[in-house]
Amino acid sequence: MSTKQNTLPIPSTHQIIKDLYPICRSITGDGLRATLEYVQKYIGIEITEVLSGTAVFDWTVPDEWNIRDGFICNDKGDRIVDFRESNLHVVNYSEPIRGSFSLDELRPHLHTIPDQPDAIPYVTSYYKQTWGFCLSHNLLKSLEDGQYTVEIDSSLEPGSLSYGELLVPGKTDQEILVSCHCCHPSLANDNLSGIAVAMHLARHLSNQENRFSYRFIFAPGTIGAIAWLAENEDVLPQIAGGLTLANLGDSGHFNYKRSRQHDSLIDNVVSLALNDSGHRYGIRNFSPYGYDERQYCSPGIDLPVGSFTRSIHGTFSEYHTSRDNLDFVNQESLKESFALLQRVVDILEHNSVFENLNPKCEPQLGKRGLYSTTGGFAATPDYSIALLWVLNYSDGTQSLMDISVRSGIAFDTIVQAANRLRDARLIEEKTDWLAGENEV
Amino acid sequence: MSTKQNTLPIPSTHQIIKDLYPICRSITGDGLRATLEYVQKYIGIEITEVLSGTAVFDWTVPDEWNIRDGFICNDKGDRIVDFRESNLHVVNYSEPIRGSFSLDELRPHLHTIPDQPDAIPYVTSYYKQTWGFCLSHNLLKSLEDGQYTVEIDSSLEPGSLSYGELLVPGKTDQEILVSCHCCHPSLANDNLSGIAVAMHLARHLSNQENRFSYRFIFAPGTIGAIAWLAENEDVLPQIAGGLTLANLGDSGHFNYKRSRQHDSLIDNVVSLALNDSGHRYGIRNFSPYGYDERQYCSPGIDLPVGSFTRSIHGTFSEYHTSRDNLDFVNQESLKESFALLQRVVDILEHNSVFENLNPKCEPQLGKRGLYSTTGGFAATPDYSIALLWVLNYSDGTQSLMDISVRSGIAFDTIVQAANRLRDARLIEEKTDWLAGENEV
Amino acid sequence: MSTKQNTLPIPSTHQIIKDLYPICRSITGDGLRATLEYVQKYIGIEITEVLSGTAVFDWTVPDEWNIRDGFICNDKGDRIVDFRESNLHVVNYSEPIRGSFSLDELRPHLHTIPDQPDAIPYVTSYYKQTWGFCLSHNLLKSLEDGQYTVEIDSSLEPGSLSYGELLVPGKTDQEILVSCHCCHPSLANDNLSGIAVAMHLARHLSNQENRFSYRFIFAPGTIGAIAWLAENEDVLPQIAGGLTLANLGDSGHFNYKRSRQHDSLIDNVVSLALNDSGHRYGIRNFSPYGYDERQYCSPGIDLPVGSFTRSIHGTFSEYHTSRDNLDFVNQESLKESFALLQRVVDILEHNSVFENLNPKCEPQLGKRGLYSTTGGFAATPDYSIALLWVLNYSDGTQSLMDISVRSGIAFDTIVQAANRLRDARLIEEKTDWLAGENEV
Repeated sequence: MSTKQNTLPIPSTHQIIKDLYPICRSITGDGLRATLEYVQKYIGIEITEVLSGTAVFDWTVPDEWNIRDGFICNDKGDRIVDFRESNLHVVNYSEPIRGSFSLDELRPHLHTIPDQPDAIPYVTSYYKQTWGFCLSHNLLKSLEDGQYTVEIDSSLEPGSLSYGELLVPGKTDQEILVSCHCCHPSLANDNLSGIAVAMHLARHLSNQENRFSYRFIFAPGTIGAIAWLAENEDVLPQIAGGLTLANLGDSGHFNYKRSRQHDSLIDNVVSLALNDSGHRYGIRNFSPYGYDERQYCSPGIDLPVGSFTRSIHGTFSEYHTSRDNLDFVNQESLKESFALLQRVVDILEHNSVFENLNPKCEPQLGKRGLYSTTGGFAATPDYSIALLWVLNYSDGTQSLMDISVRSGIAFDTIVQAANRLRDARLIEEKTDWLAGENEV
Repeated sequence: MSTKQNTLPIPSTHQIIKDLYPICRSITGDGLRATLEYVQKYIGIEITEVLSGTAVFDWTVPDEWNIRDGFICNDKGDRIVDFRESNLHVVNYSEPIRGSFSLDELRPHLHTIPDQPDAIPYVTSYYKQTWGFCLSHNLLKSLEDGQYTVEIDSSLEPGSLSYGELLVPGKTDQEILVSCHCCHPSLANDNLSGIAVAMHLARHLSNQENRFSYRFIFAPGTIGAIAWLAENEDVLPQIAGGLTLANLGDSGHFNYKRSRQHDSLIDNVVSLALNDSGHRYGIRNFSPYGYDERQYCSPGIDLPVGSFTRSIHGTFSEYHTSRDNLDFVNQESLKESFALLQRVVDILEHNSVFENLNPKCEPQLGKRGLYSTTGGFAATPDYSIALLWVLNYSDGTQSLMDISVRSGIAFDTIVQAANRLRDARLIEEKTDWLAGENEV
Repeated sequence: MSTKQNTLPIPSTHQIIKDLYPICRSITGDGLRATLEYVQKYIGIEITEVLSGTAVFDWTVPDEWNIRDGFICNDKGDRIVDFRESNLHVVNYSEPIRGSFSLDELRPHLHTIPDQPDAIPYVTSYYKQTWGFCLSHNLLKSLEDGQYTVEIDSSLEPGSLSYGELLVPGKTDQEILVSCHCCHPSLANDNLSGIAVAMHLARHLSNQENRFSYRFIFAPGTIGAIAWLAENEDVLPQIAGGLTLANLGDSGHFNYKRSRQHDSLIDNVVSLALNDSGHRYGIRNFSPYGYDERQYCSPGIDLPVGSFTRSIHGTFSEYHTSRDNLDFVNQESLKESFALLQRVVDILEHNSVFENLNPKCEPQLGKRGLYSTTGGFAATPDYSIALLWVLNYSDGTQSLMDISVRSGIAFDTIVQAANRLRDARLIEEKTDWLAGENEV
């Protein structure tokens, strides 16, 4: 399923968001498909189509939705609400409608946010057939009684649901899952930012040799993740950890929600990366509400998948409104998010468990050039102490990550110390430390 | 042993305390017996008599003590200390005495509280034969030298120790023990308040169908609980948890002392009930000093029995003095105590463990009418999130109580969510979740 | 290996430090040997010589170093740096040298502390052959260009490494290890204070009957401890716990570094002794840097050995300089340190695990004279409550130390209560509670 290396220069994360912003995405349809094709162009994902009506666990893939136009015209023929201006104006998955309505007849189909009178809300109705428009509350208040012409030129017909997938193979078949939803129309932070950062992470991983295999999933929220899980149950035992990515472009600090397993590998790696980063961050326990970790962490799946974001869904006022636009995300935050995920990958790739080959008393480091030969008053640098920590705790049970946390010494220093000790044949890597890890 | 439903209207908790206050109770005798008969009239307990001389574990049931009168007369023939005015005036279990004494001869037999010069202390001497009077320190100071006539018209003769017991049978033979001591004479908070609240709790439970069986013990402190335990060892394996009740009428905040097992079912239930109540409260670890949890939690018995009180024994100045009177307890506090125990029972009765029948990914709640079908900006109410919590953690190991604590969602909301999911056949109750629970 | 009781009056700890201060110690040689002979005179240690060239685990015992003189003379023939004034002036383990050098040629061989311009640093070069002098930075700055005559009259030749050992046998073969390094020249706190306090502790233990056997090791740091471990692997299974002693004479508060096992017997005993002492103290987790606990706690040895100090190595400015002199240590602090270690021994010796012979309900303490027979208002003293704690938790798993920590009652009160209960045959000592404990 992995595709050959794609070398087309990849746009910046902010540019990717700009490119994808205008497209009207949904959980099925051409907007979703166009988005996946854009991703494919740069990182070579494989696109899968799941036919409408396919049973996926408790769910059924719905009919495919496509929309060409939608508007409300006043009696002068002016489009006062126009899909072409913002695809948020039409309730996502609206059935086709054409007719003339009085304002009072129209009202049950109009959605606004009274608290944010200038914003257009993002509203969906995937599984109950209806139609509707979203508009600013100020506009709604300005509407006069009278007759309005309404049209939604959409279709709801058997078709398919699309998702994209990329496997960046590593030296072992143990996989790290990176998943982001791509069903939201013109919303920049939620979740074009996740798509853009995931694309850069995939490109980054494709350009280096990895120990883990990395599997990227670009799928519509909920039904897309469920469809992927239903069709890939055989893959699940290989998944050593994973992350859902979302809201990575706003100015808020980082937030990590632990997996349901709470202190799995990925939970500890993200926690260490955040701690070492110097950035502000929050770590929360698992809760079964949020992004597709809801599915990955359902009790019968129970993968160690956490959720990595900046601001948390539902907690910022721009969430699911027209204010989550290109101005709400910034290149600085996107870069920081990408750098943090690179760091997560670095730790995953360099963590290991060693065994001290000389466990009775300290070995003589000086004769191996690993230790200052002058003692006494000379201060012992952090690095020499890192050697002692690695030697003492390399008992076959403590990983380098554990040693970093225990000692308070930066992970990279611990890794350097371990590498020098390994080269001096004082410690030896445990080949089977990652449960179930197999060479491919 | 359970008796038929008694429908006699039960007095208020404060009225029960008033009714029982004048009686001179002790660890044996007619005062204790009269108290148990009063309890029997309203909730139908069975009264057991254990003969003096019966060995109960390391102890022997003592001779029965009864008292008719007791006084100290001055040389004018005035009763300056009079049992008829307060039964606290005579040391509980005093042997009979009649004679004339100088003040100095009398002094070793007189007990006062110098710090509380107006209060009469409550003093006992069950296991060492002696006699004595308790009086206010002010009165003692006012006594002039001279000759005093003393009489205690008591008897200490073979008889029996009485205790009362009520089993309110439930659907299972797993029992919750509710125990309160009833050996104190005219002391209102310690422990007529416990007796009164226990009576109301028993009446409340008799009026509803219960899953647990509830066993109420009204027994003299220490020797009574020991006698009951010695004679009922076969019952102990069925006891899933229990509480000793005391000091439930004062104005202090709630205090719970954990059982020796520390985080047993009852410990967690009381903790949740207190937390949800909004009242101030304290929770302490087990200590082997207090009420009859000392016996229930002795290492060879080790039942999960905690102690539920408002103010803690020995920590309020009215404790074991004539100031622990009808004014020291109030109906408001008594009601609150009863309500909290009702809440404990509610949680015990409604807690359960479920298994998700659809554990792979979330089930589609919308098609079952369990979830808002309109997504996007609409805020998701607490109740919908409760459904997700119950689904995710119903893996056969987490109880609804655990899920409430973990999610921070009120227990009742979690129970409602579980009931709706059960009705929708999405989860199924584990029949054997309560270890050793058997249908009767 | 234990020697007969030595009854020579032992000097005060401060006097011992004074006596040993002038000697030029190193990891081998006559200064070390003289120090051990001084210790032997008072507590009767056995001195072992390990020949140069002996392999001890990963190390080799080095050639023996001895020094008679060393100086730098200016062109007037004045000794401006003189070993006879302070043995710190010559880098420890300097090879012999004699010659004339310009100041610039000399500089690479001169060690100072620019931050502490009056202090002479303590510098060693055990395993890399070189020579050097240590002097105050002020002196270095005052040196004028010119020619200097240099001589170090030392020898580096095959010989042996010396260590001292004393076993104070107890009733069981379970051992407590007390280890201090004795390789530092004129440094008072680090570590003559450890030697002095260890000598007093050994004398104290020799004067009483003990349950544990106590093994004292006086050895040069690192190589000495490694040599002892390499030659005594058969002893290690008997070691139930241990301490390295250092820095016990300064004015800082106590610091305990836990063993690698973290909550072993000795860790809990020292923690309780410190807590009960009323002194300020700190407790740190294990780290593989410090004194010879580095060797005792290496992963292939992993003995439960903690490190007991006042100020922590490397954290006080006098550390490894000429300012760690006789003024830096005081008799008050030394006494306090000794008293604290006596307390550690007391707890070790009196701790035990009992089993309640009457575990069903409380036994009747009153009939055994163990409890006030008058109840009611009388306050129950701490001691009576201690009886109840010991009875309740003597279930064969909780030690008296555990009960003291749990109840907050002083260890001595708990021990007294246990002794009275044992005498009353209410509890019985578990003979095998200390894993692997054998009567000798």
